[in-house]
Amino acid sequence: MSRARTPGPAPIYLLAAYSREFPHGTIFLCVVDPGVGGGEDMPIVIKLDEHWFVGPHNGLFDIVTRGHDAQCWEITWKPERLSKTFHGRDLYAPVCTMIVKQQPLPGRRIAWHERHAWPDDLAQIIYIDHFGNAVTGIRGGELDRGAFVKCGEHEVRHAGTFAEVQAGQPFWYENSSGLVEIAVNRGSAADVLGLAVGSGLVIQ
Amino acid sequence: MSRARTPGPAPIYLLAAYSREFPHGTIFLCVVDPGVGGGEDMPIVIKLDEHWFVGPHNGLFDIVTRGHDAQCWEITWKPERLSKTFHGRDLYAPVCTMIVKQQPLPGRRIAWHERHAWPDDLAQIIYIDHFGNAVTGIRGGELDRGAFVKCGEHEVRHAGTFAEVQAGQPFWYENSSGLVEIAVNRGSAADVLGLAVGSGLVIQ
Amino acid sequence: MSRARTPGPAPIYLLAAYSREFPHGTIFLCVVDPGVGGGEDMPIVIKLDEHWFVGPHNGLFDIVTRGHDAQCWEITWKPERLSKTFHGRDLYAPVCTMIVKQQPLPGRRIAWHERHAWPDDLAQIIYIDHFGNAVTGIRGGELDRGAFVKCGEHEVRHAGTFAEVQAGQPFWYENSSGLVEIAVNRGSAADVLGLAVGSGLVIQ
Repeated sequence: MSRARTPGPAPIYLLAAYSREFPHGTIFLCVVDPGVGGGEDMPIVIKLDEHWFVGPHNGLFDIVTRGHDAQCWEITWKPERLSKTFHGRDLYAPVCTMIVKQQPLPGRRIAWHERHAWPDDLAQIIYIDHFGNAVTGIRGGELDRGAFVKCGEHEVRHAGTFAEVQAGQPFWYENSSGLVEIAVNRGSAADVLGLAVGSGLVIQ
Repeated sequence: MSRARTPGPAPIYLLAAYSREFPHGTIFLCVVDPGVGGGEDMPIVIKLDEHWFVGPHNGLFDIVTRGHDAQCWEITWKPERLSKTFHGRDLYAPVCTMIVKQQPLPGRRIAWHERHAWPDDLAQIIYIDHFGNAVTGIRGGELDRGAFVKCGEHEVRHAGTFAEVQAGQPFWYENSSGLVEIAVNRGSAADVLGLAVGSGLVIQ
Repeated sequence: MSRARTPGPAPIYLLAAYSREFPHGTIFLCVVDPGVGGGEDMPIVIKLDEHWFVGPHNGLFDIVTRGHDAQCWEITWKPERLSKTFHGRDLYAPVCTMIVKQQPLPGRRIAWHERHAWPDDLAQIIYIDHFGNAVTGIRGGELDRGAFVKCGEHEVRHAGTFAEVQAGQPFWYENSSGLVEIAVNRGSAADVLGLAVGSGLVIQ
């Protein structure tokens, strides 16, 4: 294949948000790899202060590493039996067990570098859950509570929780992972506001 | 908010039925809290003879405690970082770890009292699974095997198992959690009998 | 009941394929038992060189045992409380804990015999995942990479991975469980080729 294939923003921003809450020493095995079997993405291990990440070097770790001192290894080891389509089981999981056992990593140190120029905060809908709540790539700590989030023609104001607004009312809040999320009390923000993954947002 | 929000009967009766089967010493972290973030439900810990329950004092534990000697604590501790919408992770889970570690509970003993006047057995459909089997709030041990369960115009008789009735035939049985369940062999009781959550039943 | 009820091919062939990858000593509790409660299937334990299997003697283990030296026990023990419809919890799970604890099996040795005359490789679609990939009962190692898999009027050729064919293109490959699977790159093989569980295949 001539073109590298890269994950979209959802796993990149969600991984950075979710992983913050995990205990020190957690090892994250992450495989979002549209090109699996294509052969173009080297397997890597990244060590931050508190967490380990194991997966393909395709941009998946671009945001989670930002602002951290990231040590990085290219994994050159190959298992005896490597299926073409399940590297999570055959390659990455055994590497995780090596980290647990504090064995030397079977590869070589490389300098960490990001693959893509993602912004620190992405003013887009990156994920919609099955209630219709719409998660953005914007960190809630960065946004003044008086700010409005514009989605198309709608201007959405802040509320602390679902219980603070009337049923049917849209609002934005900092969700439990620290991201700005757009919701409707007892309704679907996706339906009410016509949001989809990829919808752009403007902060005012 | 002026009105407390309370869970419907499903989690209340299902929790009582399901929890019976768990080993002694099991700790149940239960959050069904339509008012989460609204601030009106105090966090509690309940200790029965065999099990612990941790969650909001909103009626969720009304049935599971019935007939037991319930010790109850109000949790007054607050974690350093308490998100507004994920008390399960931020507040209740750490309290569970304190119980595991046999640490003193960070709160004060209070007298246990139920929040709502639920009957011991609720003659209603409280849950429909994805096969269309309809679970009631009636304990099977309370019901004579000769009894009929009336759902609208249908009179449903007892059978021990699915295999005892013809395909397409409705019957009631005591399910593996001890509740009366209405089913159709190789069919959907919800479709065949027109049942929905909340449908009332009459025992004859 | 006069007729024994038997599982279809999906669990029989998938169990054989999936279980290969599990560590030595793994105990598989397997209940696919359309006749549960009907009383006709004796509970058994099977020990192969590397794995244990616990479940009903209804044909579920016919393929997983093939080519292995299978030791078999009929379980005659009954738990104090045996629900009529959840033998997985009440009967089989406690038997698994006995194996873990290396206790003698509560039953008697019997000679293992298959229940049904399944072929080693089944030229049928046995499972369709939610992407529309269609899994067959044919082991990939048995099939020459130059072979075509005929599904109705379609002749599907081999490719090593999704990335090797154009978007929208069907192909067959050996999946990560070792079975021949029919897929469409960035599409649904079930939709494109009109496949359903049970669809017959011809190898050319």
